Amino acid sequence: MMKPGHLNAITDVPGVKVGHYTLIEGPENPNGPAFRTGITSVLPPGNNLYKEKITAACHVINGFGKTVGLPQIMELGLIETPILLTSTLNVWRVADGLVDYVIQHNSEAGSINPVVGECNDAGLNDSQKRSLGRDEVFKVIESASTGPVDEGSIGAGTGMTSYGWKAGVGTASRLLHDKVGPYTLGALVVANHGQPELFSINNIPVGQLLREYREKTGEQPEKEKGGSIMIVLATDAPCPLRMLQRMCRRAVHGLARCGTYSAHGSGDFVFAFTTYRPEHSDEPRKVLRQELDHTRTACGSLFQATVEAVEEAVINAIISGETMAGTGGRGSPGIPRNKLQELAKHQGKLWKL
Amino acid sequence: MMKPGHLNAITDVPGVKVGHYTLIEGPENPNGPAFRTGITSVLPPGNNLYKEKITAACHVINGFGKTVGLPQIMELGLIETPILLTSTLNVWRVADGLVDYVIQHNSEAGSINPVVGECNDAGLNDSQKRSLGRDEVFKVIESASTGPVDEGSIGAGTGMTSYGWKAGVGTASRLLHDKVGPYTLGALVVANHGQPELFSINNIPVGQLLREYREKTGEQPEKEKGGSIMIVLATDAPCPLRMLQRMCRRAVHGLARCGTYSAHGSGDFVFAFTTYRPEHSDEPRKVLRQELDHTRTACGSLFQATVEAVEEAVINAIISGETMAGTGGRGSPGIPRNKLQELAKHQGKLWKL
Amino acid sequence: MMKPGHLNAITDVPGVKVGHYTLIEGPENPNGPAFRTGITSVLPPGNNLYKEKITAACHVINGFGKTVGLPQIMELGLIETPILLTSTLNVWRVADGLVDYVIQHNSEAGSINPVVGECNDAGLNDSQKRSLGRDEVFKVIESASTGPVDEGSIGAGTGMTSYGWKAGVGTASRLLHDKVGPYTLGALVVANHGQPELFSINNIPVGQLLREYREKTGEQPEKEKGGSIMIVLATDAPCPLRMLQRMCRRAVHGLARCGTYSAHGSGDFVFAFTTYRPEHSDEPRKVLRQELDHTRTACGSLFQATVEAVEEAVINAIISGETMAGTGGRGSPGIPRNKLQELAKHQGKLWKL
Amino acid sequence: MMKPGHLNAITDVPGVKVGHYTLIEGPENPNGPAFRTGITSVLPPGNNLYKEKITAACHVINGFGKTVGLPQIMELGLIETPILLTSTLNVWRVADGLVDYVIQHNSEAGSINPVVGECNDAGLNDSQKRSLGRDEVFKVIESASTGPVDEGSIGAGTGMTSYGWKAGVGTASRLLHDKVGPYTLGALVVANHGQPELFSINNIPVGQLLREYREKTGEQPEKEKGGSIMIVLATDAPCPLRMLQRMCRRAVHGLARCGTYSAHGSGDFVFAFTTYRPEHSDEPRKVLRQELDHTRTACGSLFQATVEAVEEAVINAIISGETMAGTGGRGSPGIPRNKLQELAKHQGKLWKL
Repeated sequence: MMKPGHLNAITDVPGVKVGHYTLIEGPENPNGPAFRTGITSVLPPGNNLYKEKITAACHVINGFGKTVGLPQIMELGLIETPILLTSTLNVWRVADGLVDYVIQHNSEAGSINPVVGECNDAGLNDSQKRSLGRDEVFKVIESASTGPVDEGSIGAGTGMTSYGWKAGVGTASRLLHDKVGPYTLGALVVANHGQPELFSINNIPVGQLLREYREKTGEQPEKEKGGSIMIVLATDAPCPLRMLQRMCRRAVHGLARCGTYSAHGSGDFVFAFTTYRPEHSDEPRKVLRQELDHTRTACGSLFQATVEAVEEAVINAIISGETMAGTGGRGSPGIPRNKLQELAKHQGKLWKL
Repeated sequence: MMKPGHLNAITDVPGVKVGHYTLIEGPENPNGPAFRTGITSVLPPGNNLYKEKITAACHVINGFGKTVGLPQIMELGLIETPILLTSTLNVWRVADGLVDYVIQHNSEAGSINPVVGECNDAGLNDSQKRSLGRDEVFKVIESASTGPVDEGSIGAGTGMTSYGWKAGVGTASRLLHDKVGPYTLGALVVANHGQPELFSINNIPVGQLLREYREKTGEQPEKEKGGSIMIVLATDAPCPLRMLQRMCRRAVHGLARCGTYSAHGSGDFVFAFTTYRPEHSDEPRKVLRQELDHTRTACGSLFQATVEAVEEAVINAIISGETMAGTGGRGSPGIPRNKLQELAKHQGKLWKL
Repeated sequence: MMKPGHLNAITDVPGVKVGHYTLIEGPENPNGPAFRTGITSVLPPGNNLYKEKITAACHVINGFGKTVGLPQIMELGLIETPILLTSTLNVWRVADGLVDYVIQHNSEAGSINPVVGECNDAGLNDSQKRSLGRDEVFKVIESASTGPVDEGSIGAGTGMTSYGWKAGVGTASRLLHDKVGPYTLGALVVANHGQPELFSINNIPVGQLLREYREKTGEQPEKEKGGSIMIVLATDAPCPLRMLQRMCRRAVHGLARCGTYSAHGSGDFVFAFTTYRPEHSDEPRKVLRQELDHTRTACGSLFQATVEAVEEAVINAIISGETMAGTGGRGSPGIPRNKLQELAKHQGKLWKL
Repeated sequence: MMKPGHLNAITDVPGVKVGHYTLIEGPENPNGPAFRTGITSVLPPGNNLYKEKITAACHVINGFGKTVGLPQIMELGLIETPILLTSTLNVWRVADGLVDYVIQHNSEAGSINPVVGECNDAGLNDSQKRSLGRDEVFKVIESASTGPVDEGSIGAGTGMTSYGWKAGVGTASRLLHDKVGPYTLGALVVANHGQPELFSINNIPVGQLLREYREKTGEQPEKEKGGSIMIVLATDAPCPLRMLQRMCRRAVHGLARCGTYSAHGSGDFVFAFTTYRPEHSDEPRKVLRQELDHTRTACGSLFQATVEAVEEAVINAIISGETMAGTGGRGSPGIPRNKLQELAKHQGKLWKL
């Protein structure tokens, strides 16, 4: 296992900020409307991303999703807005709010490619009402900060459930020092995916082991509907675009290690960016890129870091979840952490408990 | 050349409807705000597309665009909403309005994939103000009809300019009778692309020939900024999904015949659907598809029809344009049709004049 | 876990045949040339595949490989030859031999798309000499049979090493009876991939646990050079092409569960086919397909079966390996099965020991 | 129109070499076997391409073809061998011969990705006999040179027919001086594609105009079977990989301008490389790339140059063809150049006559 960074979070990548806007509103009774939703923002460093675009890639693991902004990233290898994550039916309002934000800081902007991912929180949230928009977007961007990242049922993770347990936002990081240089790779996920019986943590078949426990306590997990996961990767390693694209495809390996097969109805998307920006060249129309050589050593470290960080971010998203009641009398149970600890006692622990 | 259908329009495909919502508002003086924008809808047949999804494909010619809905079409080969086309910065509001429309007719809908394409009308339209939304979406869907399709500066085409000339919506169709069967293929485009000097119609280098004329009249075309084109293909031929995907890629050939090289800043997207729906099978969990065999004959006709229909739809979009003044004192000149006719007099005419 | 078929092999899919041609030749001393290589064939049912092509898909997990035949499968969704697997530098000779085979049975054939995958056995095999060709191709096709499949260091697996242990061919199957119908999915792999320290079997971190054992015995695993894996999926479920394509992408999930991150230098390719052939229709130019509906239920079973069968096939490829000496004095150790059994004694065993 | 280079050939790109090996053998009578085939090589500059790999991209316009080497180019963005073009059923033997060539110069090479494209010359050539291999590969590489490039029925073009006329190799180039810098883009094609009635040169519908002439002379063009085209692009402009990939996709636009719709059975592939190599950096594990900024200006010039050079290379491939008799009593007529000249007399001529 590679070493995690100081915070074990995507914010270990210098300059990367994360913000959460959480909306928990309305009665927890069976018939009342209720909002259990939010937005999470991931901001690459820089004062004005629209003016100083950043190298980025994306990948579709399973495309049953509404994520906005992919084609332009695929075409140009750039992002020009923060990455926002939210709930499915809010995605276009949040994108439109993000456009407002960019226009406010760039009065001339006529072409803007907002990047907004989503998972479906309709299990707990009155999602058809679409309770998020411009104001919430401004808040989640302006409140973003470096430093520790809150996990679990917060921001975009508020209404999410993964492998049958209340989940949400998770994050982790890995240091690339040994082989690549003084760099860090971080992952942040919103986990809303996974079939309960397939769940595995750190090589323990948790899903099966907890089934009996669950039957005893009478808890009923939310029925699996396909789910989704959003994965954001960040690094300050000066990766060429092609390496970022290949890293994105390794997010699948990390995701798979907890047991999912990426169901038919899953919208599983990956974004990756490097905070490295090329310099201006003395020669006209050119830029100077001092990039990692695209070799086995560099790729091996970055790929392994990706797999490990994604796997741990998923686990963190779930073990940080707390039982929550939501709209229509439905609920989602937090995973029993003491029970987990017991299951893990003979194993080296990967996760934060 | 293959024969066009009765209307020479995408509505020659049985059951396909087109609607336009046009917004022309505000003074034509240099300093006033002005809206020159709109929405065009293309509706596959069926009472409730969300419940009776339809086989569809899409293709990205150049991905510098904000089109919404592609990943799910690519994953599943289905569309579940009408296809709406509009102006760049309106795309998310229009998508959100389309979600309202689907929810109104499907109260249980929790996962909806609106399909909305866009071109940038910022040359004539005060696009940052984003003047379109829910109400306009309902109107453009509910007013859609079979029958002749208005072309030029209408609906999504209102503010568009192509090859330096005022353009907009164009459509054309081809009959597949001879080789494939009693079917039709139709194309509808919103044309906002192309470098003036490269424009060619029906083998005549119109862009070069009109330059002199233009210099004499003192008209100044809008400066090329990259542009974009949206292309929608429809057919009632029972194509397998793979064939639809391959047809999409032939839209490029039709597009290229008028001279464009699909500039860096162009968002050039293609959608294709068949109105054919499989039958339920007697066997459980199965459907019965009576599809075209995926052979050279069928593909040849469908590919050629695609190329021809797209090429003619582009030409129709431009020769239907009328000079328009817009925001900020800017304007876009209609192509001089009498001059064109003169240029064409020794040629077999392809276009409607 | 889903139930395996009778043979737990790809040949559980009715009519599918597998053949092995193994070449072990030359002294095991440090300086002599030595061949440790071969070919494995997977034959879909049918008397003449070239005349009765079959629906197929493929997927590139990591494309650092020389596999032949992909573009035409991607374009048409068909294969027209048996799938052959061999060693890297033999791939073009084997492809050329496969063309001979097709011509012998189809004297008019002018366009033939042989499908040949490869992994690099240069660790044990004098691969630059390219010892395989036409004769070996004929033998490996003509000797293919239904029934049990030999695993480990045989056929294309002869010279392969995976996660530092002698490996080769592995296979497994899963029954789809419960949810999809009376169908089977089978996987066959040639495993030559994986970083020793990352190896995990059935949730046991075997790679780490065996390191100590290995240090004691003084065995040195072949140094990891990137490796590769070839994965073939077969089913008799009447999947639409799109479903096959999506199944291919789930092979990654199975692959990842044993620990690999698909190294930079890995050529990891997936092929999938259904033995279902459409019927001729009464209508001209049409075929009749009675296919699985493309729903969550069908996809869920097929995706899970894919993940499980690939994972187990990889494990079987490794636990069937036997220590082998090869060219240049190099060797590859078989995994110590008694040691493994010990490690597994408190776990439900997945693998055949 | 952009200016062509001095030679109007791919060899205008400094250091790029082209070689032809032509095999014309056997009687021209109806029943004798006859070879009308060959190989064309395109060599990027450098003493040992395998050691000093070069940035490259590829694109599949229509994938009904057997081209070898694509997946690794797509994965890594590199080529490590010359690009060879030949006839369909020779592709694997030529690839194997190319491996011999690389091994001869790199005795340690264990992983080699030969790049070999093909079109089907079975109309004139006894292609099933596969008359090309190692010796011919060595000759076509070792005889390659800078300077003028022979066009038409030579090398890989020997047996090819395009739009019903004897065709073969064509090349053209464009100077990028005005907007990008002192660079050149060149294209080389092997043209074997196109439906006779759709052929258009420089805006003249040559296919239709020559039909009458053809009927009078009694010449019968080879029946269209789908055809294929291989396109190689080279530039010394220091393009980032993403720009090369996007250039590849513009080859379609040039191809389409002569009228083809890329038939079902066409194998239409594009390769592009830049001769620019990054420098070693002072920092460990890094390279220094001084690349073109990925902007509208640079892309516009490179895209337009691509379109123009591909279009002209196709035309040159056809107007350089000479009537040829081949196997089985079949033949392919050269286009009547005096007739063409007549048709063109009122037009600015693009082509070399």
